[in-house]
Amino acid sequence: MNPSTALLTDHYELTMVQAALRSGHADRPCVFETFARRLPDGRRYGVLAGTGRFLEALRDFRFGEDELAFLREHRIVDERTLDWLADYRFTGDIWGYAEGEVYFPGSPLLVVESTFAEGVVLETLALSVLNHDSAVASAASRMTAAAGDRPCIEMGSRRTHEGSAVAAARAAYVAGFGSTSNLEAGRRHGIPTAGTAAHSYTLLHDDERDAFANQLASLGLGTTLLVDTYDVTAAVELAVELAGPELGAVRIDSGDLVEQAHEVRAQLDALGATSTRIVVTSDLDEHAIAALQAAPVDVYGVGTSVVTGSGHPAAGLVYKLVSRQGDSGAMEGVAKASKDKTSVAGRKFGLRRRGPDGVARAEIVGIDERPQDDGDDRELMVRLVERGEVVVPTDAATAREHHAMARAELPRRALRLSHGEPALPTTYLSDWS
Amino acid sequence: MNPSTALLTDHYELTMVQAALRSGHADRPCVFETFARRLPDGRRYGVLAGTGRFLEALRDFRFGEDELAFLREHRIVDERTLDWLADYRFTGDIWGYAEGEVYFPGSPLLVVESTFAEGVVLETLALSVLNHDSAVASAASRMTAAAGDRPCIEMGSRRTHEGSAVAAARAAYVAGFGSTSNLEAGRRHGIPTAGTAAHSYTLLHDDERDAFANQLASLGLGTTLLVDTYDVTAAVELAVELAGPELGAVRIDSGDLVEQAHEVRAQLDALGATSTRIVVTSDLDEHAIAALQAAPVDVYGVGTSVVTGSGHPAAGLVYKLVSRQGDSGAMEGVAKASKDKTSVAGRKFGLRRRGPDGVARAEIVGIDERPQDDGDDRELMVRLVERGEVVVPTDAATAREHHAMARAELPRRALRLSHGEPALPTTYLSDWS
Repeated sequence: MNPSTALLTDHYELTMVQAALRSGHADRPCVFETFARRLPDGRRYGVLAGTGRFLEALRDFRFGEDELAFLREHRIVDERTLDWLADYRFTGDIWGYAEGEVYFPGSPLLVVESTFAEGVVLETLALSVLNHDSAVASAASRMTAAAGDRPCIEMGSRRTHEGSAVAAARAAYVAGFGSTSNLEAGRRHGIPTAGTAAHSYTLLHDDERDAFANQLASLGLGTTLLVDTYDVTAAVELAVELAGPELGAVRIDSGDLVEQAHEVRAQLDALGATSTRIVVTSDLDEHAIAALQAAPVDVYGVGTSVVTGSGHPAAGLVYKLVSRQGDSGAMEGVAKASKDKTSVAGRKFGLRRRGPDGVARAEIVGIDERPQDDGDDRELMVRLVERGEVVVPTDAATAREHHAMARAELPRRALRLSHGEPALPTTYLSDWS
Repeated sequence: MNPSTALLTDHYELTMVQAALRSGHADRPCVFETFARRLPDGRRYGVLAGTGRFLEALRDFRFGEDELAFLREHRIVDERTLDWLADYRFTGDIWGYAEGEVYFPGSPLLVVESTFAEGVVLETLALSVLNHDSAVASAASRMTAAAGDRPCIEMGSRRTHEGSAVAAARAAYVAGFGSTSNLEAGRRHGIPTAGTAAHSYTLLHDDERDAFANQLASLGLGTTLLVDTYDVTAAVELAVELAGPELGAVRIDSGDLVEQAHEVRAQLDALGATSTRIVVTSDLDEHAIAALQAAPVDVYGVGTSVVTGSGHPAAGLVYKLVSRQGDSGAMEGVAKASKDKTSVAGRKFGLRRRGPDGVARAEIVGIDERPQDDGDDRELMVRLVERGEVVVPTDAATAREHHAMARAELPRRALRLSHGEPALPTTYLSDWS
């Protein structure tokens, strides 16, 4: 049995359950939605990631003896609430966008239909997973778009929490990265892993010749030799001298990468190592990758910027009560009135409006009714959970395919890296029809 | 038994072990150090956090059957290396700054003395933990400094990975936050938890009166009522009508907080609720907290900005081989030559130089020798691990006390929020003496 995820929760969710049990409204049918009020400044689209991880965590959202003992000991909730939590199983339905889907302001990414109490306790877990993973995937997608056919390796584990690192590797893979340095991500999520050696390996040895010769003997001629510990030109010459033209790759981790890529490529070619690849790895982000598009680089290794969302470490998703049953028995849309944090009341349905050419034109969000497909459109709502049971695949590979499809449908301007407006306008059905 | 932490590691660390086993240098005595080349732009000091978590993770750094099976199946390393990993136990010594200590460029925060192979495999785990936790603590310390005697509540779980959230709550606590919304942080790290209700709770009910009355009945008069769901003035009036002057607090989560704090304080006082406190929680960071210093606010709730390091989500710490035994048997300082990422070779020792007034003056870093205490100084190096055994407390409360002491020693300019240089100059002993 997996560890419980039930305490990855904010204190106030449980006190709300307590108060709602007392007021008799804990069982009111409700709809909670997760969406972005806006995209991070200048971004043209967002990428939803983490849905699969959230659904797996939902299965483990159980208040067992240890969790209840903690809550009791610290008097966080009363006995009646503890009894309710002890029996907690999510029994509602969850709809949402498929993991890997692109999104825009207002897109209903996760729609939880349940009683108030069953839904409110999932707020923190859903947002933690989706905000983190979507922040990483949204940045990663810009990087893979800029990289084109050249593969990207995620290698940012050391720049983020050790648990985030595993999830970040998964989210980057969803957004098109080809591999990760993180071994746990390989084990847990089936993502290909990659890596050969750091500067410390070279420094350990008495000289670079000793280090390279041993690495080639141990890891094979296809390995990647790190050539910037001392002098790049001397190291490239030594690498080809020792490995011959079968050398897999050289890696450059410092300096002016554009200039060095040209120099090293020319040197490798002159030495006959025409198929030896060049890997670059120094503080890359989507802009640095774009600046290297015309340079003879074969592989990008990306660290800090991808795992920290390239300037936007949280996607800004919120989880809001948008509808609940009223006294009449009918569902009623609800929203708070605060001027600077408005929400649109009512349950939402997303549809990607496409032209006859298959290119996406708008994000249609129906309020309390499903928008009509005009023949070229793509339905975005997927049933993820039915009466408490997860009914979709939760793996990263499926989400990765979905992302490639969804991104390919966007107008070309969506992939520009410069600051811009969301690539598709969000149109609420009440405006549209 | 805890889950193994051994795969929270970059692929290349294990291939380096493989190559070093072949070259015969895997057992060379080495020193690896973790330090910051620079502070994040404009920051005046950094706060080390995560040391306790790293030491706990070190105890669980074991390659068990599952980990070895994964490595074998994916041919990540050869059989000889798998055998070595199966027997892996860290048997070296680790020195470092105490958790909670403030630091400056070059401060030797973690100094690992071991064979190459034993030390190199800890690189990613050490950096993941320390980079994340120190980023959060460094931001959190600026917030608690700006907040003065007013307590700060960490409530950013939803804006970061669900595992980071627990560690972020701990790091914020180390840097002086008083409590967290995160229940798992309460359970795992003993941090006080806090929370009452969100807007969804009010919206669930037919009206605010119903919601407030039930909350007061269920959670007591000392609870915090959220007053900005509809109209703040009406809600405050209703709150005091229902609870009387015993009302614990009101919370404001939107709008102009300075203006509203003054208005709500005046209204509460006019209603006789002079001891009812005001909690504010809308997108606060250290600058917003500073701007509220003159406003009648009692408690700050901080979310996104603290868990994401307030603009600097990774502390930028690196883990470098700085010394290793040479052929002669003597230890030799090593460093790579790259121009833009230089390191200082040799084992480091940190000392906080203080004036006779007890105020810190400089960060003294001795290279290969311990700097002399001139009588007023404070020794910074603590032995954390002795022959593989953790020999210091790893809890958050101890680190929190240490941080309060270390910060109090800094010159006043260190606590200014404006962009500045590091508050203490780092002086390498070779320059100093």
